[in-house]
Amino acid sequence: MTILIKGGLVIGPSGASHADVLVDGETIAALYAPGRGPADVETIDATGKYVIPGAIDAHTHMQLPFGGTEASDTFDTGTRAAAIGGTTTIIDFAVQRYGEVVHDSLAAWHAKADGNCHIDYAFHMILGGVDDESLKAMDRLVTDEGISSFKLFMAYPGVFYSDDGQILRAMQKARSNGSMIMMHAENGPAIDVLVQQALQRGETDPIFHGLTRPQELEAEATSRAIWLAAVAADCPLYIVHLSASKALEQVKAARDLGRNVFAETCPQYLYLTLEDQLGAPGFEGAKWVCSTPLRSGKQSHRADLWQGLRTNDLSVVSTDHCPFCMKDQKELGLGDFSKIPNGIGGVEHRVDLLYQGVVDGKLSLARWVETIATTPARMFGLYPRKGVIAPGSDADIVVYDPNAHTRISVETHHMNMDHSAWEGWEIDGGVDTVLSRGTVVARGGTYTGRAGHGRFLKRGLSDYLL
Amino acid sequence: MTILIKGGLVIGPSGASHADVLVDGETIAALYAPGRGPADVETIDATGKYVIPGAIDAHTHMQLPFGGTEASDTFDTGTRAAAIGGTTTIIDFAVQRYGEVVHDSLAAWHAKADGNCHIDYAFHMILGGVDDESLKAMDRLVTDEGISSFKLFMAYPGVFYSDDGQILRAMQKARSNGSMIMMHAENGPAIDVLVQQALQRGETDPIFHGLTRPQELEAEATSRAIWLAAVAADCPLYIVHLSASKALEQVKAARDLGRNVFAETCPQYLYLTLEDQLGAPGFEGAKWVCSTPLRSGKQSHRADLWQGLRTNDLSVVSTDHCPFCMKDQKELGLGDFSKIPNGIGGVEHRVDLLYQGVVDGKLSLARWVETIATTPARMFGLYPRKGVIAPGSDADIVVYDPNAHTRISVETHHMNMDHSAWEGWEIDGGVDTVLSRGTVVARGGTYTGRAGHGRFLKRGLSDYLL
Amino acid sequence: MTILIKGGLVIGPSGASHADVLVDGETIAALYAPGRGPADVETIDATGKYVIPGAIDAHTHMQLPFGGTEASDTFDTGTRAAAIGGTTTIIDFAVQRYGEVVHDSLAAWHAKADGNCHIDYAFHMILGGVDDESLKAMDRLVTDEGISSFKLFMAYPGVFYSDDGQILRAMQKARSNGSMIMMHAENGPAIDVLVQQALQRGETDPIFHGLTRPQELEAEATSRAIWLAAVAADCPLYIVHLSASKALEQVKAARDLGRNVFAETCPQYLYLTLEDQLGAPGFEGAKWVCSTPLRSGKQSHRADLWQGLRTNDLSVVSTDHCPFCMKDQKELGLGDFSKIPNGIGGVEHRVDLLYQGVVDGKLSLARWVETIATTPARMFGLYPRKGVIAPGSDADIVVYDPNAHTRISVETHHMNMDHSAWEGWEIDGGVDTVLSRGTVVARGGTYTGRAGHGRFLKRGLSDYLL
Amino acid sequence: MTILIKGGLVIGPSGASHADVLVDGETIAALYAPGRGPADVETIDATGKYVIPGAIDAHTHMQLPFGGTEASDTFDTGTRAAAIGGTTTIIDFAVQRYGEVVHDSLAAWHAKADGNCHIDYAFHMILGGVDDESLKAMDRLVTDEGISSFKLFMAYPGVFYSDDGQILRAMQKARSNGSMIMMHAENGPAIDVLVQQALQRGETDPIFHGLTRPQELEAEATSRAIWLAAVAADCPLYIVHLSASKALEQVKAARDLGRNVFAETCPQYLYLTLEDQLGAPGFEGAKWVCSTPLRSGKQSHRADLWQGLRTNDLSVVSTDHCPFCMKDQKELGLGDFSKIPNGIGGVEHRVDLLYQGVVDGKLSLARWVETIATTPARMFGLYPRKGVIAPGSDADIVVYDPNAHTRISVETHHMNMDHSAWEGWEIDGGVDTVLSRGTVVARGGTYTGRAGHGRFLKRGLSDYLL
Ligand SMILES: [Zn+2]
Ligand SMILES: [Zn+2]
Ligand SMILES: [Zn+2]
Ligand SMILES: [Zn+2]
Ligand SMILES: [Zn+2]
Ligand SMILES: [Zn+2]
Ligand SMILES: [Zn+2]
Ligand SMILES: [Zn+2]
Repeated sequence: MTILIKGGLVIGPSGASHADVLVDGETIAALYAPGRGPADVETIDATGKYVIPGAIDAHTHMQLPFGGTEASDTFDTGTRAAAIGGTTTIIDFAVQRYGEVVHDSLAAWHAKADGNCHIDYAFHMILGGVDDESLKAMDRLVTDEGISSFKLFMAYPGVFYSDDGQILRAMQKARSNGSMIMMHAENGPAIDVLVQQALQRGETDPIFHGLTRPQELEAEATSRAIWLAAVAADCPLYIVHLSASKALEQVKAARDLGRNVFAETCPQYLYLTLEDQLGAPGFEGAKWVCSTPLRSGKQSHRADLWQGLRTNDLSVVSTDHCPFCMKDQKELGLGDFSKIPNGIGGVEHRVDLLYQGVVDGKLSLARWVETIATTPARMFGLYPRKGVIAPGSDADIVVYDPNAHTRISVETHHMNMDHSAWEGWEIDGGVDTVLSRGTVVARGGTYTGRAGHGRFLKRGLSDYLL
Repeated sequence: MTILIKGGLVIGPSGASHADVLVDGETIAALYAPGRGPADVETIDATGKYVIPGAIDAHTHMQLPFGGTEASDTFDTGTRAAAIGGTTTIIDFAVQRYGEVVHDSLAAWHAKADGNCHIDYAFHMILGGVDDESLKAMDRLVTDEGISSFKLFMAYPGVFYSDDGQILRAMQKARSNGSMIMMHAENGPAIDVLVQQALQRGETDPIFHGLTRPQELEAEATSRAIWLAAVAADCPLYIVHLSASKALEQVKAARDLGRNVFAETCPQYLYLTLEDQLGAPGFEGAKWVCSTPLRSGKQSHRADLWQGLRTNDLSVVSTDHCPFCMKDQKELGLGDFSKIPNGIGGVEHRVDLLYQGVVDGKLSLARWVETIATTPARMFGLYPRKGVIAPGSDADIVVYDPNAHTRISVETHHMNMDHSAWEGWEIDGGVDTVLSRGTVVARGGTYTGRAGHGRFLKRGLSDYLL
Repeated sequence: MTILIKGGLVIGPSGASHADVLVDGETIAALYAPGRGPADVETIDATGKYVIPGAIDAHTHMQLPFGGTEASDTFDTGTRAAAIGGTTTIIDFAVQRYGEVVHDSLAAWHAKADGNCHIDYAFHMILGGVDDESLKAMDRLVTDEGISSFKLFMAYPGVFYSDDGQILRAMQKARSNGSMIMMHAENGPAIDVLVQQALQRGETDPIFHGLTRPQELEAEATSRAIWLAAVAADCPLYIVHLSASKALEQVKAARDLGRNVFAETCPQYLYLTLEDQLGAPGFEGAKWVCSTPLRSGKQSHRADLWQGLRTNDLSVVSTDHCPFCMKDQKELGLGDFSKIPNGIGGVEHRVDLLYQGVVDGKLSLARWVETIATTPARMFGLYPRKGVIAPGSDADIVVYDPNAHTRISVETHHMNMDHSAWEGWEIDGGVDTVLSRGTVVARGGTYTGRAGHGRFLKRGLSDYLL
Repeated sequence: MTILIKGGLVIGPSGASHADVLVDGETIAALYAPGRGPADVETIDATGKYVIPGAIDAHTHMQLPFGGTEASDTFDTGTRAAAIGGTTTIIDFAVQRYGEVVHDSLAAWHAKADGNCHIDYAFHMILGGVDDESLKAMDRLVTDEGISSFKLFMAYPGVFYSDDGQILRAMQKARSNGSMIMMHAENGPAIDVLVQQALQRGETDPIFHGLTRPQELEAEATSRAIWLAAVAADCPLYIVHLSASKALEQVKAARDLGRNVFAETCPQYLYLTLEDQLGAPGFEGAKWVCSTPLRSGKQSHRADLWQGLRTNDLSVVSTDHCPFCMKDQKELGLGDFSKIPNGIGGVEHRVDLLYQGVVDGKLSLARWVETIATTPARMFGLYPRKGVIAPGSDADIVVYDPNAHTRISVETHHMNMDHSAWEGWEIDGGVDTVLSRGTVVARGGTYTGRAGHGRFLKRGLSDYLL
C-alpha cells in the first residue's frame, strides 16, 4: 500500500524541513518538496504537524522476572502501549542468570516475544554470570544473533552482580568483537550495607529506598566502569538510567577525553523527585521505587540532566520500562522497602514527556528527535533502517500534533498497570498517527495494529565508534 | 532543468543512506529510495560515490586589505576556486574600520562581491570600532541586512582591537538581538610586547611569528571572551580559528556548563606545525604566517583538535582563507616577521583535507559532512536552505569520489596564489561533480560555472541557541 | 630588659606546645620547657592563654590618597590601632603614580611613615606607570631598598591600571629579580561599562557598587593574571583581596599545577555580604564599599573562602585596611556610588576576627597563626625575623586570652574612623598583651607604646619559591 | 644527662633559625638564641649542620608474614637500621587476618616488638576481616590501646581484601571514633584477571608485575575509596604508597573540595621506574617488586609526585619498608612474577633520599622536614611529642651534615637484606648524629644505641581534622 504523508514539517536530528513523505509497503519510498509528491495516492494530512521517525525505546523489561514477581506488561501489552505512544521499536533485555547457558536464555526470551509484539523489537543481553562460556557466547551473539550489546550490573550482589574482574573480562571481549557494554552503575555491596542499617533502624518506608542509594554510589560506580573500560582498551561503554549530577560529571569528564563513553537518562529523572514522588505519604511512594532512584529536588539533578541532554553528554532517553502493579506486586514491600519490586512503567509516554521539554524551552525539536529516535538507532546498530525519515528506511513514522493536548492517567493509558507514575501530567502536544513498517497502527487515538506485526531485528554494531 | 543524481550514498550529519536525488531548477525536488526516481530525466551517475551537501566555508577574506596590501583572491577568483573544491557557500567578512560608518563599510563589501561570485555568499561584519553608533547598526544589520554575526578582535591593537569594555557592550547588544559574537581570541597587547622583544633580539625569521604568540595568550583570550560573554547574560560566542590545546580546554569547560560557546578550527591547525612549516629554512616559512599561528608538533595540539572535532567541542572547520602571494606580499616581511601579511589560502582544499581525516580514521563520514556543511549552515542561520540534502533545500550538492586521488599543487590549484600552503599533499579521494543551486559548476575537473551566478544570502539567527 | 612569658601555650603554624618564652631586649632569647626558665626575671603570666607571634598585616593603606580624599588613618593612628589589636608589623603600599619617578614616590612614603609608626613596617610598591624607567627601578628596590613585591592593577583605568603588555613586562622583570607581583584582579574596562550603564539607569545606591563588579570579572582577571605569569616563565604571583568563589577556583587550578600562585583574602569577605552590609538601607551601605566588593550571601563565597584557608589555596588573611569616614569622605558618593571612596578599615580587628573562626570550628589554632603571621612573614621575606616564636626572632609576641570577650564598636576602637565596619560584632576571645621588639605596647587593654618605636623593615625575597 | 647541640641551623616545617638545643634527659629542655645556652654542659657541635626532628616512618612492615615467607628485618634489625638513617620513630602495621580476634593479633605484634626496638614505635592495625566483632574492636583500640589508624586493602582478594561494604562499615566506625582509615588502593579483582592472562601468555618476568597493575587500577581504587569515605560522612582517609599521576589527580580533586583526604608516597616512586629497575635483565627486577608497582619513566609520574609533595597534595613520605632477600625469598617467584614477595626495604635511607630532593631543587628544607617528620607526627597523633624541635618534646633529634656524602650499598647498609634497592645511589649529604629520647644512638657513623631502648607509643587522634 502507498501513503503520502502531506504537509508536515519533517524533523530530523539536524533540523526541520517541510516535505511530503511517500510510504510504499514497509519502507519510505521518497521525500518530496511540498506538493511535489504523487497525487493519486492515499494521504495523511500532516498540515501543521510534525513528522518524525518512529521513536526507539532502547531500555525496556517486558515480563521480566524480578523480586519474586514479574513485570506486568507482556510483550503484547507493552508493545501495544508503546506503539500508541509513538514508539515503534523497543530494545528489550534478554536475561542470562548465573548458571544458565546464554543461548538457552536468549531462546527463552525469543519465545516470550515471538508472535506477540505489535512493533519491531530487538534484544540486548544481560549477563548475570560472566565466565569462560558466556564470554564465548558473546561472540556468537554478535555474529549470528544480531545482539551487539551486553548489560552488566554493579548492583544487586547475589542476583545480577558482576565483580570487577568479571566486568573487565566482558569489556575485553566487547572491545574485541565491537559490541557495547551497558552498565547498571551503582555500588551494590555498599548499598546493601546502607539498606541493612536503615532496616535495622526501622526505616522501612519507600523513601528509604532512595536514601540508601546516595548519588555518590552511582557516581562511584559510573567512574569505576569508565576506569575499567579504559583498562579494556577503551571498550565502548553505555551507562544506563543515569540519574544524578555527580554521575553525569563522570561521564562528562570521560567524553571530554574523547572516550567511547555514553549515557542515557529516563523521563522519571528529568521530572520526578525523591521528595515529591518517592516520599509520598504512606506506601504511595512505592509506585516510584526504581533503581537508580529518584533524586532530591533540592539539588540540581534535573536541571543538570536537561543540560546534559542538550550538550550530548547524555545521548539517549529511554524509559527503563519495568512496570509492577501496586496490588500483589509493589505491595510485596509493605513494611520493608527493600522488598518492593524495582521499576516504573512509562513506555507509552516517553515521546510526549520529552516533547514537553521542547515546549518548556529545554530541548530543540531536532534534539527531541535525536534523543528519542536517531541516536538510539545509531547507538545500537539499527541506523538507517530505523531512527530517520529517509528513502529506503523502514516506514516507522509518527505524526505529532503540537496543537493537541494529552493528559496522562491510569484511566486512559494502555499499559498493564493499576496506576500511573505520571497520573495527571499534562502535555502540550500529542501523538496523532503512528506507522510501523508502513502500517498505520494508531490514528486519532484509535489503535489499529495487531500483535505479531512486530518483527525481531538483528542489530549491527554501534555507529559511534571510530 | 531537472537532474537525477543516481546511485550514490547520500551522507548527512547523522549517517548515510542510499538514495537518488532529484534536482529541479535551483532546489532539491525529491529524494528517492534507489531506483524509485523518474526515468526520463538527465542523470548524474553517483554509483560508488558520496552525495553530500555543498560545503560551507564560514570564514574567508576575499580581497581583504591587510598590512599594506590586499588578499590576493578577489570574490571572482576565490569563489571560483571554492566551487571547484566543493564549497558552494562562503561567509566572508565585511570590515568596519575605526571611524567608519557600518553601513558604508557593508556597502563597500557588497560592491566588491556583487556580480563577481561563482557561488552563493553571505557576510559576517567585523566591527573595528565599537561605539554607540556601530552598536545601533548591529540591530539594523540583523533585522534588515541578513547579517547575524559580528566579529571582534582581542588582537591587533591599533587596527581591529576592541578593549574589554567594547567587547562587553557588543556582546550585550548581540544577546539582545539574537546575533552571534565571533572572536579572534589572542591577547594582542601582550603579544606586541613579545614581538618587540624578539625583534630587539634580532629574531626576525618567520618562525618567531609563532614563538611570540604562545598558546597561553590564545587560551587566555579565549577564556576572557567566555567570561565576558557570561557577564553579557551568556551571549552566544563563536571562537574563530582555534589552534591550540589550552584554548580548546577553555571551550570544553564552557560547553560542559551548557554555555552557548562554539569554536571552529582550520585545516592548517589539524595538519601543519610550527617546526615543519613555519620553521622552514630561510623565508619559506612566511607562507604559513597566519594568526593564530601554527603550533608545535612536539605538543598534542593536532591530536587534541581532531578529538575536539569528534566530540563536537569544535563545531566547525573553516579555512580562514586569506591568501597572499610570496612576491610583493609576504615579502613585505623580509627581515621583520611582524610585517609579513597574516594569512593562508585554502578555500579550495578544505573538503578534501577533511575527507582525508575520514580516510585516516579520525572522523566519521557523517561528522565530515557535519563539520564542513551542516553545522556551519545551522550555526549561521542558513539551514535548511543550505547544509543538507533535503527536499526544498537549495540544490548545492557535491558528488565526492572516494576512489579518486587528488594531489594539491600551485601548478593545478585555482586560487590566485603564487604558491600553495599544501604543496604536494595527497588526498585519497576527490571532488567529482559540484552543483550550485541546481547548476553544475564543476564536473570531472572541468569548471563550468560563471561569475555572477552566486547570490548574496540574507541569513537568519543561529539554530544552536535555546 | 628581660621578660619571661610563663605558662602559656605557644602556638606555631604546625601546632602547639607548652613553653616559656624568654625575651631579652628586642629579641627572643630562649624557649623553655614549662618551668625551666630563669627565676629571677620579670614575668608575664600566660597561664591558660595562647602565646603567638605578633601578627603581620600584609596589606594596609595608611593615609592613601584616593578619590579626592585620603585614607583617614595616618601611620600614627593606624599602627597604634594595629598594635592594640595584636598586629605588630604592617606592610603598607607606597604608590608610584603614572608620570612619577619610583624613587621619589618611595621617598614620599618614607616621609609619611618615618618616626610615626608604633610597630615595625615595610613597603610594597604600587606601580601605576610601568615603563622602561620604572622597570629598571624594580631591580634597585629589590637590591637596595628592601622592597621585594610590586602591585599592579587590572582595575581603575586612568588611575592605577596597567594594560596586559605592561603587566607582562613587569612580570618578566619580577621573574628575573626574584620579586613578587601582587595583583588587584578585576577587569576594570568591563566594570566601567557596567558602572556607566547602572548610573544611566539611575541605580546610584551603594549596593550597585557590588552589582556592577560581578564575580565573573574578578575571576576573569585572576585567570588572566595567572596566564600572563605563565608567559613570564611562572613569575610569582600573589592575588590580593580575593573575594569570590570563581576567582578562588582559578587560584586552585593554578596551584594544582604547582604554579607559584598565591592569594590572600580579608575578614570582610569571610563574614560580610552584599545583601546584609552593602545593601543596608539608604546610604549606610557606603561603609562597606570596597573593591573587590562584598559578595552575595546567597552564594557559597564565604564557605568557599573558609575552606580555601583550610586547604592553603588561600595563603594569607590581610585587612586591605583603607579607612574612610562617612562624613566628608564616604559622603562624596551620595547619589553616585562610583564616587564613594573604596575601602574598609579593620587593621585593629583581624587577629580577633580570625580567632572567631577557630572558635566556630572553621580553622585550627595552628592555621590561625599561620594565616595571620607565619605565612605573611614567609611570603614577603620577613621570616624568621617575624612570624614565629623562635630564639633569635624579634620579640613580637601576642598573649591571646581565649577566655576574654571582645565587642567591636566605634565607641571603643582606636582607628581614626567615625564608624566601624564591624559594629557590634562579638569575639569569644581577646588580645591580652602585645610586645613589639621586646617592648610591651599593650597590656590589659591599656596602650603603652609610642609613635616612633616602629622601624622600617628591609625585606628579602619570598620563601615560597623553589 | 644534659647535652647542648650548638651552632646548628634548626629546621622546622615553616623554616629555619639558628638556635642551640638543650637536651635534658629524654626531652628537649630549651632552645636558645645562638650562644645563649648554658656553658657547662656536654655539647654536640652542629656548626654548619642542620638540626632536625628525628624522622618518623609511618609505614613499615617488620617481620611481616607474606607470600609464604616473612619480611627479613626483625624489629631489632629494622629499627636499628632506621636509627642509623635518622629515623627515630616507626609506625608499623599489626595484622589481623580474616578469622582472627583483633586483640590477639595486636598482642602477637606487641610480642614481636617488645624489648627489641632501638627506637620508639607505634602500630597501625590492618583489618583483614571486617565484621561486627572487629568493628567493635576498633573503638577499644582507639580508646585503650593508642591505635588510631586502621588499614584496609582493596587489593589481594582472599588475603587482606575487604569488599566495598566492609570498607564502608569500617569507615563509618572510624568517622564515629575519630580514627583514620588507611587504604591500599588498587583494584584487586581486576588486577587478578590481568595477572592470570599474563601468566597464560607466558609473561612471567618481574616486569609483568608492573604491567598487570596499570595506574588506572590504582586511580580507580583511590577514587572509589574517596567516594566511600564521602558516604561515610567524610571519614578521614589516608591513601598509602601512592605511585601514579592519575591516582594523585583523584587525591587533588578531593583536597580541592576540602575533604579529609591525605596521601603518602615513598622514595621508590620518586626515583625508580618500571623500565630501569623492575625491567632489569633476567630476574634482577624482582628486587623492585612491590605494590603499588614502580611506574613508567616515559610518563610524568615522578615529576608529578615531586610536585604533589611541594603542593601538599602528598602529605607524607614513608618507606613501606618490607624487605625480602633475593635468596630464598624473592626467588620464590622465579618463573612466576605473581609469586615474588611484594616489598622493598628502605627504612634506613628515606631521610637521605629526600634530602637529595632538596639538593636537586625539588623540595625546600622546610618541606623536607615536614614530609618526613612533622606531618607524620601530626597525621598520626604523635605531635608535639614527636616531629618537632620544641621545648618539652622528646629529644629525638638528627644532626644532618649537608657537606657529607653518602653512598648507599648492600656492603654498608644495616638492614637485613642481601641486596640494596638503592645500590650505588649517592647522596650529597649525610646523617651525622642521631638522638632518640635524649640518647645518642648514632654518631659519626658509629652505632651507639641498643635494642630495648625503644618504647611503644600510644597515639592520639590526627591533628588534621576539623
Ligand atoms: Zn538497571
Ligand atoms: Zn533496566
Ligand atoms: Zn582572526
Ligand atoms: Zn580570519
Ligand atoms: Zn586592590
Ligand atoms: Zn588594597
Ligand atoms: Zn599496601
Ligand atoms: Zn605496606
